Amino acid sequence: MKLDIKTKILIVGLGLLGGSYAQSLSRQGYYVTAITKEQHSIDYALERKYIAKGSSFVDEALIKEANLIIFALYPHVFLDWIRENAHLIQTKTVITDVTGVKQSIVYEIQSLLPKGVEFISAHPMAGKETSGVENSDENIFKNANYIVVPTEKNSLDTVELCGDLGETLGFREISVLTPEKHDKMIAFLSQLTHCIAVSLMCACEEPELERYTGDSFRDLTRIANINDEMWSELFLANRETLLAEMDNYRNSFDKLYDTIKNGDRDTMREMMRLSTARRRKFNKEKK
Amino acid sequence: MKLDIKTKILIVGLGLLGGSYAQSLSRQGYYVTAITKEQHSIDYALERKYIAKGSSFVDEALIKEANLIIFALYPHVFLDWIRENAHLIQTKTVITDVTGVKQSIVYEIQSLLPKGVEFISAHPMAGKETSGVENSDENIFKNANYIVVPTEKNSLDTVELCGDLGETLGFREISVLTPEKHDKMIAFLSQLTHCIAVSLMCACEEPELERYTGDSFRDLTRIANINDEMWSELFLANRETLLAEMDNYRNSFDKLYDTIKNGDRDTMREMMRLSTARRRKFNKEKK
Repeated sequence: MKLDIKTKILIVGLGLLGGSYAQSLSRQGYYVTAITKEQHSIDYALERKYIAKGSSFVDEALIKEANLIIFALYPHVFLDWIRENAHLIQTKTVITDVTGVKQSIVYEIQSLLPKGVEFISAHPMAGKETSGVENSDENIFKNANYIVVPTEKNSLDTVELCGDLGETLGFREISVLTPEKHDKMIAFLSQLTHCIAVSLMCACEEPELERYTGDSFRDLTRIANINDEMWSELFLANRETLLAEMDNYRNSFDKLYDTIKNGDRDTMREMMRLSTARRRKFNKEKK
Repeated sequence: MKLDIKTKILIVGLGLLGGSYAQSLSRQGYYVTAITKEQHSIDYALERKYIAKGSSFVDEALIKEANLIIFALYPHVFLDWIRENAHLIQTKTVITDVTGVKQSIVYEIQSLLPKGVEFISAHPMAGKETSGVENSDENIFKNANYIVVPTEKNSLDTVELCGDLGETLGFREISVLTPEKHDKMIAFLSQLTHCIAVSLMCACEEPELERYTGDSFRDLTRIANINDEMWSELFLANRETLLAEMDNYRNSFDKLYDTIKNGDRDTMREMMRLSTARRRKFNKEKK
């Protein structure tokens, strides 16, 4: 299957990400429908023409007409949904997702699907500190990274289809990683950074800190404004990999601590120069 | 002494901060001069009318005509300058600074000054990841915090003068802290955040991380692009206070680590909610 303008797309879960997918795809002329729990989310998306049709229950007709189904749900909700409803999905339908952890769901979902239904997993590295379809914003995909996460069960065609979806949505860079490599990258780049921001915010009881702060603290703790339901699930679903990355980081922090304690200016400056050199590659403007 | 448009201001050290001070004050009609090591910095500032006069050596005439001298130098350079040249400063001159650490310099500077010369210390919480007068930008003061750091030797009048300077430069919030309290705040809000960013950048050897990253990692490591000469000096000049804040933060990080290791979702979510509540106060938009 190739992604083209005749592809009928069903989005399951109209939150911030699902809504932003719907917004972008409908604007580009795709036929997009949605299934989500809350009727007000459907109403909101219909009003703004993010979707052509929607249902707050598992509507078999919507599932049956879809060529591509995109799941934008919490990991355990996604698993439960598939356990209950996989039998409704038609042969030759491709399904994909936006889930932030992979090893703990991809293999299981693939094993639960009927024959002829292919699941190609993906992780759009985009978001906001808000949630809900009302905060949808297709601009969050601009300049962002998109990771396709195939297993041995996936065909090259479907990997390509999934990458095409990322490109269509406007992502800047499409990469392909195994579930294992994905989870390691995300543990370091995303989960660990959230752990750091939360730990930092919890470390100081002092009131009125905001009166003395500079922008470095503000930037570092932007993500300390965190959805505790979602992130506790993501952390626990990637537990061993995250703990390993936390250990690595703590070793690095301890090394810097020792240079300060021992007045070892040379090693301290060496770490700062390595840090500066590595950070340069992350500047968005460079591309 | 009060700050008014007739106050003659000498800036010693025309880097990013000294240059931005000069730019703002000259634009507002103040008579501003400068002493700095490099002639090309003087030339640059003269061309752009950031200063009326400048010298690349310690020009006694500029020191003698100044009512207010602002030092924008590295801590040890500031101390050396005062040791060598304090005798040139006229009675009734007020001096201030922009130094990022206080206990290790304020008391010593005050003890080195001739009678009748008052040093009122200040810390503008503004900056950029670039340096040099060529990167001057008075807009960095907008919405930023400014901390006046008096000791028992300072008069109320001079504390007020220093606050007026901060207001004139356009800072949003002027606070007054003791050197001890300042160093503790800055250890937590600024030095610790730089330690975290550097440690994080040094923790992972993986190439191509930038292809998989989201904005959280980018924001958190913006300050990992760090001036190793300046920051190693600042860290060591505030060593004990910084180590104590690093310990506090590490305890908090370890607590979160344990919740993940033990699958203790309730405590994890409690930390996330505390973090979210505390972070809200830092939103700039709120003011």
